[in-house]
Amino acid sequence: MGIYDLSNEMVIGIDIGGTNTKYGLVNHRGQIFDKGDIKTDGYATIEEYVDALHSAIYPLIQKFEKNYQLKGIGVGAPNGNYYTGSIEYAPNLPWKGTLEIANLISKKFGVPCTLTNDANAAAMGEMMYGAARGKKDFIMITLGTGVGSGIVCNGQVVYGHDGFAGELGHVIVRPGGRKHYSTGAHGSLEAYCSATGITVTAKKLRAENPDSILNDIPEEQVDSKSVFDAAEKGDTVAKEVFRYTGQILGEALANFIMFSSPEVIVLFGGVIKAGDYIMKPTREHMEKNLLPIFQNKVKLVFSELKEADAAILGASALVWEQ
Amino acid sequence: MGIYDLSNEMVIGIDIGGTNTKYGLVNHRGQIFDKGDIKTDGYATIEEYVDALHSAIYPLIQKFEKNYQLKGIGVGAPNGNYYTGSIEYAPNLPWKGTLEIANLISKKFGVPCTLTNDANAAAMGEMMYGAARGKKDFIMITLGTGVGSGIVCNGQVVYGHDGFAGELGHVIVRPGGRKHYSTGAHGSLEAYCSATGITVTAKKLRAENPDSILNDIPEEQVDSKSVFDAAEKGDTVAKEVFRYTGQILGEALANFIMFSSPEVIVLFGGVIKAGDYIMKPTREHMEKNLLPIFQNKVKLVFSELKEADAAILGASALVWEQ
Repeated sequence: MGIYDLSNEMVIGIDIGGTNTKYGLVNHRGQIFDKGDIKTDGYATIEEYVDALHSAIYPLIQKFEKNYQLKGIGVGAPNGNYYTGSIEYAPNLPWKGTLEIANLISKKFGVPCTLTNDANAAAMGEMMYGAARGKKDFIMITLGTGVGSGIVCNGQVVYGHDGFAGELGHVIVRPGGRKHYSTGAHGSLEAYCSATGITVTAKKLRAENPDSILNDIPEEQVDSKSVFDAAEKGDTVAKEVFRYTGQILGEALANFIMFSSPEVIVLFGGVIKAGDYIMKPTREHMEKNLLPIFQNKVKLVFSELKEADAAILGASALVWEQ
Repeated sequence: MGIYDLSNEMVIGIDIGGTNTKYGLVNHRGQIFDKGDIKTDGYATIEEYVDALHSAIYPLIQKFEKNYQLKGIGVGAPNGNYYTGSIEYAPNLPWKGTLEIANLISKKFGVPCTLTNDANAAAMGEMMYGAARGKKDFIMITLGTGVGSGIVCNGQVVYGHDGFAGELGHVIVRPGGRKHYSTGAHGSLEAYCSATGITVTAKKLRAENPDSILNDIPEEQVDSKSVFDAAEKGDTVAKEVFRYTGQILGEALANFIMFSSPEVIVLFGGVIKAGDYIMKPTREHMEKNLLPIFQNKVKLVFSELKEADAAILGASALVWEQ
């Protein structure tokens, strides 16, 4: 960001998910002028998909370009590589191999396009518009179906030498521990602290505790939400599910803090809806595992962006950073 | 570093240890014109210590300042804070509280002075003159009496919001594991992979294996060196000491890689003299615990700086970075 006036500029944020692609036109304050979505699947080639994206977005650009100049497009996507502008072997997308998406979008729309993965985009969104505004050192952890992360040091997203830095969901927190449902690794953070991991923990604990009302939940409905409801009814086993999850998350956060000493850790995603059931043990075990010089310093906060808009805002923030 | 000629400039690197302080006059290629040392203890106040340092170094400055302009002084010290220029509550130094050492040295010598901790200084030395020359993303791990680290992302040392980032020796790698001899934490990397940790592992394993020739070593001589000698004689328990240490180190390195995706990890310190006994299991378990996108990419190398000079060179590199 220069010191010149940004108030007559706009950017587009695009969030590419496995099923849907969301987009929005955004100003430098994070206000979304207009937004929409298209299906991600249903296109034989990436080129056809970009054409469809352009057809959907172009009318919105026309509507606002009288008053706002389109500065660029930011894209968040699974396995999106900031350095190359390519999506590389994303398991959840319909197209295989290396997809030069930034280049294709830039050519089609006639403005610069910047790509990164969804978790890094989320971190950028928090730094530009949200809970990490003005912070130069922070870590963003997304706790959803999986566990993702975006790391900012010295005001810059940490991309590493190859663009793949910040895979904190795959850090091993319990050597030889629970097998990951997709990578096969034993004891990774994601295997315990994702929504998927919480379901596993709940099923394990209810099997061991036949008196728990968790046993009243139909097998396919055991999730973070139904376990939360049981905890609210006073079920100690349901509370233990979150306590256990929080302990492992807190221990992991302590290790991350001793790596990059962030001022703030921003948490985002469905799992944090369990509130204090998970956050109290998280804080407790985070502090307990820190060297004294790091204790009682790091703020643990929730994202300030609306969940429905966060991905669009995060992607849009990439443009302002340039 | 600008693009102007550095060949007629020199800097001073000072390494403050608990017992001795080493210093050297260094050019931009890492050549040491002259060096020396004074005792760190034996001075009632930090001011008297700085006076003594000046008395020792000033004659060397006079000798070289005809041909080389003194550009500045870099200091590496335990708990040295880059942001404040102060040593903050270092347990191993004779003076207590916060020591404004950079300020005192700068006033006394009449040139700028930059401070950081010893492990960050070591990383700077490798980036300026050693195994990480030209690398923008790397991690330096020092395996000595303790385990220290310096992290470089995007060409900059990661200091974190408070200057204390990079305490990778205190990351918990075995939750609930071995108690640390000084911090009291359970299962930290330093408790296993420092020279001190290796001694503990050796004593534990020789107790469990009465046939091992490790039992022939006098209690106070059980260390990395004597265990290495036993391994060289073919003792399988001695080899297991290093294999176990290497496994834990490798697992920790995998976690660090998934954080910042470095191009290189530089290892330094007495422990690496065990060579393949420790490095083979380190590499094996590092690769095994990485997500596929990180596998077979990260170079694991030894420091290229002479052990006796590395601390001086690292401290001196701080000045060139400015």
